[in-house]
Amino acid sequence: MSSSFGKMLTVTIFGQSHGEAIGAVIDGLPAGIQLDFDEIERFMARRAPGGAFSTARRETDRPRILSGLCGGATCGAPLCAVIENGDRRSQDYEKLRDLPRPMHADYPAFIKYHGANDIRGGGQFSGRLTAPLCFAGAAAIQLLARKGVTVGAHIAAIHGVEDTPFDPVSVDAETLRAVSAKPFPVLDEQAGGRMKAEIEAARRRLDSVGGIVECAVSGLPAGLGEPLCESLESRISSAVFSIPAVKGIEFGAGFSASAMTGSEHNDPFVMKAGRVATETNRHGGVLGGISTGMPLLFRAAFKPTPSIALEQRTVSLSGECGAPLVIHGRHDPCVVLRAVPCVEAAAALVLLDLMLESKGRDEWN
Amino acid sequence: MSSSFGKMLTVTIFGQSHGEAIGAVIDGLPAGIQLDFDEIERFMARRAPGGAFSTARRETDRPRILSGLCGGATCGAPLCAVIENGDRRSQDYEKLRDLPRPMHADYPAFIKYHGANDIRGGGQFSGRLTAPLCFAGAAAIQLLARKGVTVGAHIAAIHGVEDTPFDPVSVDAETLRAVSAKPFPVLDEQAGGRMKAEIEAARRRLDSVGGIVECAVSGLPAGLGEPLCESLESRISSAVFSIPAVKGIEFGAGFSASAMTGSEHNDPFVMKAGRVATETNRHGGVLGGISTGMPLLFRAAFKPTPSIALEQRTVSLSGECGAPLVIHGRHDPCVVLRAVPCVEAAAALVLLDLMLESKGRDEWN
Amino acid sequence: MSSSFGKMLTVTIFGQSHGEAIGAVIDGLPAGIQLDFDEIERFMARRAPGGAFSTARRETDRPRILSGLCGGATCGAPLCAVIENGDRRSQDYEKLRDLPRPMHADYPAFIKYHGANDIRGGGQFSGRLTAPLCFAGAAAIQLLARKGVTVGAHIAAIHGVEDTPFDPVSVDAETLRAVSAKPFPVLDEQAGGRMKAEIEAARRRLDSVGGIVECAVSGLPAGLGEPLCESLESRISSAVFSIPAVKGIEFGAGFSASAMTGSEHNDPFVMKAGRVATETNRHGGVLGGISTGMPLLFRAAFKPTPSIALEQRTVSLSGECGAPLVIHGRHDPCVVLRAVPCVEAAAALVLLDLMLESKGRDEWN
Amino acid sequence: MSSSFGKMLTVTIFGQSHGEAIGAVIDGLPAGIQLDFDEIERFMARRAPGGAFSTARRETDRPRILSGLCGGATCGAPLCAVIENGDRRSQDYEKLRDLPRPMHADYPAFIKYHGANDIRGGGQFSGRLTAPLCFAGAAAIQLLARKGVTVGAHIAAIHGVEDTPFDPVSVDAETLRAVSAKPFPVLDEQAGGRMKAEIEAARRRLDSVGGIVECAVSGLPAGLGEPLCESLESRISSAVFSIPAVKGIEFGAGFSASAMTGSEHNDPFVMKAGRVATETNRHGGVLGGISTGMPLLFRAAFKPTPSIALEQRTVSLSGECGAPLVIHGRHDPCVVLRAVPCVEAAAALVLLDLMLESKGRDEWN
Repeated sequence: MSSSFGKMLTVTIFGQSHGEAIGAVIDGLPAGIQLDFDEIERFMARRAPGGAFSTARRETDRPRILSGLCGGATCGAPLCAVIENGDRRSQDYEKLRDLPRPMHADYPAFIKYHGANDIRGGGQFSGRLTAPLCFAGAAAIQLLARKGVTVGAHIAAIHGVEDTPFDPVSVDAETLRAVSAKPFPVLDEQAGGRMKAEIEAARRRLDSVGGIVECAVSGLPAGLGEPLCESLESRISSAVFSIPAVKGIEFGAGFSASAMTGSEHNDPFVMKAGRVATETNRHGGVLGGISTGMPLLFRAAFKPTPSIALEQRTVSLSGECGAPLVIHGRHDPCVVLRAVPCVEAAAALVLLDLMLESKGRDEWN
Repeated sequence: MSSSFGKMLTVTIFGQSHGEAIGAVIDGLPAGIQLDFDEIERFMARRAPGGAFSTARRETDRPRILSGLCGGATCGAPLCAVIENGDRRSQDYEKLRDLPRPMHADYPAFIKYHGANDIRGGGQFSGRLTAPLCFAGAAAIQLLARKGVTVGAHIAAIHGVEDTPFDPVSVDAETLRAVSAKPFPVLDEQAGGRMKAEIEAARRRLDSVGGIVECAVSGLPAGLGEPLCESLESRISSAVFSIPAVKGIEFGAGFSASAMTGSEHNDPFVMKAGRVATETNRHGGVLGGISTGMPLLFRAAFKPTPSIALEQRTVSLSGECGAPLVIHGRHDPCVVLRAVPCVEAAAALVLLDLMLESKGRDEWN
Repeated sequence: MSSSFGKMLTVTIFGQSHGEAIGAVIDGLPAGIQLDFDEIERFMARRAPGGAFSTARRETDRPRILSGLCGGATCGAPLCAVIENGDRRSQDYEKLRDLPRPMHADYPAFIKYHGANDIRGGGQFSGRLTAPLCFAGAAAIQLLARKGVTVGAHIAAIHGVEDTPFDPVSVDAETLRAVSAKPFPVLDEQAGGRMKAEIEAARRRLDSVGGIVECAVSGLPAGLGEPLCESLESRISSAVFSIPAVKGIEFGAGFSASAMTGSEHNDPFVMKAGRVATETNRHGGVLGGISTGMPLLFRAAFKPTPSIALEQRTVSLSGECGAPLVIHGRHDPCVVLRAVPCVEAAAALVLLDLMLESKGRDEWN
Repeated sequence: MSSSFGKMLTVTIFGQSHGEAIGAVIDGLPAGIQLDFDEIERFMARRAPGGAFSTARRETDRPRILSGLCGGATCGAPLCAVIENGDRRSQDYEKLRDLPRPMHADYPAFIKYHGANDIRGGGQFSGRLTAPLCFAGAAAIQLLARKGVTVGAHIAAIHGVEDTPFDPVSVDAETLRAVSAKPFPVLDEQAGGRMKAEIEAARRRLDSVGGIVECAVSGLPAGLGEPLCESLESRISSAVFSIPAVKGIEFGAGFSASAMTGSEHNDPFVMKAGRVATETNRHGGVLGGISTGMPLLFRAAFKPTPSIALEQRTVSLSGECGAPLVIHGRHDPCVVLRAVPCVEAAAALVLLDLMLESKGRDEWN
């Protein structure tokens, strides 16, 4: 099963960039939940192309709901949303069957599918498949919000230019909602300005840049996740690596913890306003695979857009020899801005799934 | 299901540190495979405590095979291996029910299980549970080896002291087997010496240190993995985050890719000895969620051992107030050395699972 | 996950009878397979209403393929097919929210979904959801056919009137294809005539009748399935009980075996044309959960259509008292005719899944 | 994954009849539950051989708990129980590798595993594997009991001699407990006497007989299960077909419904003591895949023990020719008595799993 994840809440994503349509089936939503579809569309608009810093391809991305609703509320049936693929220029991609683009899935897909895969617009590897992910995530975010759980993310870095990180201890729903609502979601607007300049410079050089998204979740109850194989980190990382272009993920202090001593890294438990908390949240809200009640914090690294307009070297699969390649078409010089809601969506879907599980098992008695 | 992973090959791990026994059930191994149990024990010995740089607790860790074999070969039934918990000093842990150790699972486990969890030796959160993981992984490594796939890892860093990384393009089976066979698996012995000094210094200070494990896989065929939800990275990261103390994972250039431009990061396809390869393998052997035929390369960050002998602050759950804590007992000042085979095991199990799947689907015609 | 089944091949079904559309996502089909969509539509037409013996509701049931194809062949992406719900008369169903229909899902669905479920046309419980099942099954049947596996079924009984059963030993592809192609699939046309008379009589009495479908699979290789929890019977029965109105399933001699002695029931192995076979196939092609290479044979019992036009008794959920009920609308007096392809579809999907698994594991060496 | 089932509650069974040991891992039990192990052993004793009507092989079947408990209560870790295989006479089975026993798994297992499977005592196909199933089921039954759900079964028929069926409407916890407690669980002792005579006669003739087990569940809440692919019947049937020798299953009126009219079969809703009920429970407690709150009722058909001491015909796989076979060793002339707790166990595990799921999703708000 290549395109589904989740246990109590399952999301199945389908489609190719230039096929008829893309979509998602979300199975396991509790029944009787009124979803705010305007809010879902606003969420999806954050991922949609068309902004100053993204590709010129127009997508309306307005999902059509085929099933799962009755009178505007979830009815217990799987929720299926479909987004038509209107604006397609497939002729741009014909030669790519012979000349695999560096850092793209063209070559491994050619091997895996014996050349039968859809290469138009990246086929099923296209970033466009994150639109149904965002649809599903937006629905999950609404259910989480009613339980007091807020998911938000910002651009933590673009090409090495860094935003102020979330305060790991005090990040709250208000902060998360405020930064998510920004057209260019950063905490430090000056850093944001420098990031935009990096992106614009990359575009002018016909190049691209990578970056980092930091995601936080406030209001998460302690006790979600499992030791070992279904750790909270296992589940979140598995979902986040479903987003194209992600190359790394870290929780709390992450890789920097590897250069610390225990006495530097350890995070004392303290009482705060009558509740158990930790002093630094260097642990990122998860210990032993289980949420601690502190904000969940993780960072995902995105590679620079592999499609650049500069000439590159590749091989001709038919001639089995080196060949130059110039990629035409419309491409983001930086995917990070549009990746922010994708990261939120992936996290939200995992957390809602875990909350459904936890309620059944941990609240048994 | 908290303790299983895999689809065609499923591993279920059970046990608590100070319970009767720990073990693993491995389901889905092809039948008729002769396993070399001496080799499995040598692999498990790399994880076992007792070396100069690890805890003083003696474990024999010799697994007893309850099922799955007939005449020394796999017989199609699930392979179950059990390791008795012989040497237990449970009295060391009694007060921990009230005083959760910083950076340990004690507190979230208390919440999740309403205090019913086994706190002796960390219970089901203990690093000891990686012994059955290593058993299963050692078996998987043998099956992979017969298909020409070699998994190996080394200590890439301890407390910021770095080893030479694997050569991402030319790392081969010989290199991997050679470094895995070392008692302190590093490529640069001088760096290894400095790492040992860091660990020894931490031990003397009653402190601990973290580090990084780099894992490589040579001989992996192109075409393993799926786009989106079951990407190779999703599967590997999910398994690796099952190992206690992992805080981050990155593939190929990983987080450093986030600070690069596309023209710096992109990895041209080239012909090498008649085969399609890439020039730099900055992509780490996986594109679009699918293996490319280049060596698979990833790094996992480990936090410093949270159990340190220095006095720490925590809270008394009964009194709901701050409290000092001194942890007694036997603890590694650094888990990274013993984590090396665990990372290899996790990767091997995922890859064998994917090879079983791929053979069924991708070689259908 | 309420609406998916399968491991290597996963089918997710969505929709409600009177929602926007219904459909299926089939994930895991090998890439590069040319599907014959005319054949798929012919298969689906067998299930579609409109014949002399079924409901008057017109369905075109022509599926629109949203994804999974490229140039007419499978491309490795999930295959999504959608069928619009054109002809809907929802006003027929309004009072049912208060008066649950006997033998329908109305009441348990009301409890499960707290009244939020879609009651129009049976919502997600509608037999109409078998249309996407048949789409998926028709695709699976084509893949199986290319491996020499043929799935076919006939009406074994209607209201106690019995057709000649399949010859358990000699049933072959030709027989199966021939009976499947009939508008009223029976082996004995005289029995078929009496069955039609039963259905017609039930319709005139405003009543309905039940029946039995017998399914056979020829050409199935030995070795599919597993002992215990994933037995071939477990997998087939789980899929067949997904079809509404199924009340029982039996393999081979089935319930009649319970009244036999071992010496009567046992089925000797014999050599036939150089191959190992059995004499009677009383075992139905499966032993120990694994296919034997003999034809797979099972029978599924269908209850009489619960929607009958005769006045019935039920309760008023609002008034919590007894109430008379007259069901209007269009209903089959017998679902068995249309159930025949549904049973074939369910079996085919399971068998294709098992063949994908088996190829990966059992042909490992 | 051949040996696991369940979603929130997963059971993994391992072992071969004459291997070292057999066992089960039960993952997902709520923490803090005190299990009554004497009761579990009493339950397992009902399945154990040694009674007047079963095989002479002695099994103590006392399970050793390796993990999952702390202070006698579940601790959130997987519960692993192991039963040693003490009394083994493997020499009885040597020649079976060449002469597959009729109606046994020998031949399909030989094909599937290329001859590598363990043939001693039936290996992983042995009915002995139902001992860990009963262990797991006994634990599930205790959890269900605390929620007011009672599972019980009786011998409904042996070789055509029928017991009085459960009253489908009024069957209650007391009736179920009473019949389960009997050494020969029937409702009508005279029928029981005739059944015993059938078994004894079969034994004297060196033959065997089949039978039917009827299972009922009282106190089950309405709303468990799902439409379509995860219907209550799909889940139960999948688990029940995991028990060796099961050839059929039917719910409520089952196969007999296929010969009824709708007006005969339909089951009116009525108010009883202020609760919604049905008049006849011909539906067997499940409609649309979802429990209705009426007693759940199903029947499972068991074939006659295939191991009979009479001479039989088979083939020599080495010589590829017909061959006579006389089976020695110890075999039940009828497995039905010992199958009764197995059926209860399978049902209980599915129902507990569904209750864990339902609590999470259906009680979300």
